[in-house]
Amino acid sequence: MQRALSISRVTGNRSTFPDWYQAVVREADMAEPSPVRGAMVIKPWGYGIWELIQQDLDRRIKATGHENCYFPLFIPLSFLAKEAEHVEGFAREMAVVTHHRLKTIDGKLQVDPDAELEEPLIVRPTSETIIGDAFSRWIRSYRDLPVLINQWANVVRWEMRTRLFLRTSEFLWQEGHTAHANAEEARAETLLALELYRDFSERVLAMPVIAGEKPENERFPGAANTYSIEAMMQDGKALQAGTSHYLGTGFAEAQNIRFQTDKGDWAHCHTTSWGVSTRLIGGVVMTHGDDDGLRLPPAIAPRQIVIVPMLRDKPEDAEVLAYGEALAKELNGLMAFGVPVRALLDKKPLRSAEKRWNWVRKGAPIILELGPRDAAAGQVTVIRRDDLRDGDKVRSQAVARETFVGGAVAMLEEIQASLFAEAKARLDGALIDGIKTFDDLAAYFGPAAEDEADAFRGWAKVVWARPTGAELEAVDARLKTLKLTIRNAPSDQPGGDLGTCLFTGRPAVEAILIARAY
Amino acid sequence: MQRALSISRVTGNRSTFPDWYQAVVREADMAEPSPVRGAMVIKPWGYGIWELIQQDLDRRIKATGHENCYFPLFIPLSFLAKEAEHVEGFAREMAVVTHHRLKTIDGKLQVDPDAELEEPLIVRPTSETIIGDAFSRWIRSYRDLPVLINQWANVVRWEMRTRLFLRTSEFLWQEGHTAHANAEEARAETLLALELYRDFSERVLAMPVIAGEKPENERFPGAANTYSIEAMMQDGKALQAGTSHYLGTGFAEAQNIRFQTDKGDWAHCHTTSWGVSTRLIGGVVMTHGDDDGLRLPPAIAPRQIVIVPMLRDKPEDAEVLAYGEALAKELNGLMAFGVPVRALLDKKPLRSAEKRWNWVRKGAPIILELGPRDAAAGQVTVIRRDDLRDGDKVRSQAVARETFVGGAVAMLEEIQASLFAEAKARLDGALIDGIKTFDDLAAYFGPAAEDEADAFRGWAKVVWARPTGAELEAVDARLKTLKLTIRNAPSDQPGGDLGTCLFTGRPAVEAILIARAY
Repeated sequence: MQRALSISRVTGNRSTFPDWYQAVVREADMAEPSPVRGAMVIKPWGYGIWELIQQDLDRRIKATGHENCYFPLFIPLSFLAKEAEHVEGFAREMAVVTHHRLKTIDGKLQVDPDAELEEPLIVRPTSETIIGDAFSRWIRSYRDLPVLINQWANVVRWEMRTRLFLRTSEFLWQEGHTAHANAEEARAETLLALELYRDFSERVLAMPVIAGEKPENERFPGAANTYSIEAMMQDGKALQAGTSHYLGTGFAEAQNIRFQTDKGDWAHCHTTSWGVSTRLIGGVVMTHGDDDGLRLPPAIAPRQIVIVPMLRDKPEDAEVLAYGEALAKELNGLMAFGVPVRALLDKKPLRSAEKRWNWVRKGAPIILELGPRDAAAGQVTVIRRDDLRDGDKVRSQAVARETFVGGAVAMLEEIQASLFAEAKARLDGALIDGIKTFDDLAAYFGPAAEDEADAFRGWAKVVWARPTGAELEAVDARLKTLKLTIRNAPSDQPGGDLGTCLFTGRPAVEAILIARAY
Repeated sequence: MQRALSISRVTGNRSTFPDWYQAVVREADMAEPSPVRGAMVIKPWGYGIWELIQQDLDRRIKATGHENCYFPLFIPLSFLAKEAEHVEGFAREMAVVTHHRLKTIDGKLQVDPDAELEEPLIVRPTSETIIGDAFSRWIRSYRDLPVLINQWANVVRWEMRTRLFLRTSEFLWQEGHTAHANAEEARAETLLALELYRDFSERVLAMPVIAGEKPENERFPGAANTYSIEAMMQDGKALQAGTSHYLGTGFAEAQNIRFQTDKGDWAHCHTTSWGVSTRLIGGVVMTHGDDDGLRLPPAIAPRQIVIVPMLRDKPEDAEVLAYGEALAKELNGLMAFGVPVRALLDKKPLRSAEKRWNWVRKGAPIILELGPRDAAAGQVTVIRRDDLRDGDKVRSQAVARETFVGGAVAMLEEIQASLFAEAKARLDGALIDGIKTFDDLAAYFGPAAEDEADAFRGWAKVVWARPTGAELEAVDARLKTLKLTIRNAPSDQPGGDLGTCLFTGRPAVEAILIARAY
């Protein structure tokens, strides 16, 4: 079958899924590797998706009372040292600035050895310490609380194995940081952020997720509780798509974030932090892409409706273009998902078939083809990206122009809903419930050998006694032999008697999700 | 006279202007110094202004055909070395990343000496080299041109003397980068960006500027032409508020950005770059602030209309609050400057007088005070920040609620216009034309001694023969003895016989602006 994409994810060999992913990102012209190891160049189509994610998420973050700030990129080493003493398992792979000058020595531009900083500066991997420092200055009294801050920023973590959007040394994200007078309010904030992410992922990205709490060994270092949303990719693996942390008073103690209570005594704040990143774009690709490339949910498609005029270097071209211009203008006057529709007349000097396939690969939700006959008949030929194929053929339908315009917003909403429904059915259908023993788990997921580990298995929901400490580490080690991880304990827990813990044989206290993961 | 701000800019001692500036920024709660030398924390009110600047400018940049991308923060040293060989006067104070790991050695968190990078990475001071590298891969044929890219990003320049917003080690900006087939198109692009900045500054920031070309010695290193917009601050000094560079083919040659022409031969691209930054916010403060604090043009005020309820812990409070809520909702339903009005009911638990002065210092364009009597009478008490005082008293006026709501958008537009008119009158009135000799120039501006150099002088428009090379350097050195600089040669040049060059005595070829500057 002829496909727009050069690599199929449904060939017999499942190990092509990562290659398929790279092909989609490349052929949709979203991003490319950069000459700086582990960093990427985000191209207009990829960045346009990020801008739409930002706009919607920013609106939600502000609507829940948070304000945006900007904090320094560089963090003094001493700030992290304070944190490191306090927190075991502190991540250490970071970019370190040690000098502040370049100099031409022997005709060659070099780092000036005389310009060493007194204190090395770390390029922020996350901003708890630098924002906590500000909180310690800003907060004096219970009247100052809560402090609800968000930041849009770039962060750097020195990753050894990188993949565009999914794991890069530098990435873009949003990080919420809040301080509260008590545990109750801080926990409520943590769950508010988690729910915000869940709702955003499902409604805007059309990406179903399961929200829940991470096990103790997967917490953010120093956090009292870490929650995540987990999405199922088309290879059955889990992608952690967002996290929200209740930090207790540990960070406030390390950074002296204190306030005078209404009774006049002093207490440490309870803090939270939560973030999602450009990784979400990788999740969208692996949730909605197909063998023809990307399929974008209309809510985050930089172009929702693309009009491709069929031009033949003939006098009729002018008429086709005028018809297309008027149509684009009319569509841009409509509102969908609360904002104006984004329609484009593609006038690039390429053959129309080439243009059509470019937009198919980029995942534009609706493509309209316009020839002289359409212009004359007052119609448009409609291709829906979510329903592209009829067997080997591309499915297209001629519709009267007014009919299309009148139903365009509903069609965009329908595409959004259909992409979500498709992904939701996959998630629901691949969530195995009822495995009772570790041997059954091992048998279900199969061996961890390279060529087999990529077979589609989905996730298993099992019950456990929530072991801690060394016992939990042993569970983790056993799962690792199968390349499995615990994703989270879903917020939506089954009631009644749960039965026996799969790992310890003791009475189970909660259900957890087990999966291979990114 | 009682003022909201603790420091006046109009006391006899003019040297307080910088102190006044710091006081406005601090008391409007816009930004604060950070523990990282030379960097700042941008607080919600300052960041809110930046978000509005971004939104409007981004719309303009996209409307002129540019697309947003994101390029890596880190630039390999070798990229800059290539540039440095090519460009004399290459700036060298930059943050250099040399290591990628921290490690606990002897119980102390330190830079791991075993984790030195093979090649040092520079934190971008500007992105010509990393974007040029992408251009060299993206551009193959004349059909790929023009490439019109913009990036919103943080950049770092190791500044020794810093001041909030005006000059910080890290700042936020927008950088446009474009590649064209010929000089004509690239020059047109350079001037298009310049005009975009001019129009934006005047219409949105209400900050009058003079656009023009920088003299040869003030060009961006390696540029063929550099243009700027210059704004006059209230101390008479010039602030360079934006620049646009035509880079010729020099950067393309250093980076191998080539294309095949429609005739089949190969040519280097002509490139441009242009940017404005968070420095604009400093310009807004020094253009519109007064002795009561900031005055914000409504187009960039995060809150345009603030409603301060006068609450007395009495049963009538509920009525006042309900009245205020309904009013805020009604105002937020209006449109001003093409977007919804931003009104707020300030319910913070502070005394209403304190709240009023907070909003005066923050520069909210309209403040409405609401007491039980206003609620009962269906009126509002209106304070306009651009016209705050009647002698020593605050000017306020009781107006029927419907009258205020019906005229609110017009009032915001009027405030925007009045702030511009006030600044324009100052610029026009302080632009001395007709100084013919260097001695007269020296006499006019007065000595460069610390205590005198801050006296208000404004700018001088003089004519010159546009000397180059060593002759220009001599001119520059003479001006420096008076702490003066050449700002630009205004795009709008006088016609006819210009007379004699002030510096060389030769026939003059153009008018230039001379001023003390930030």
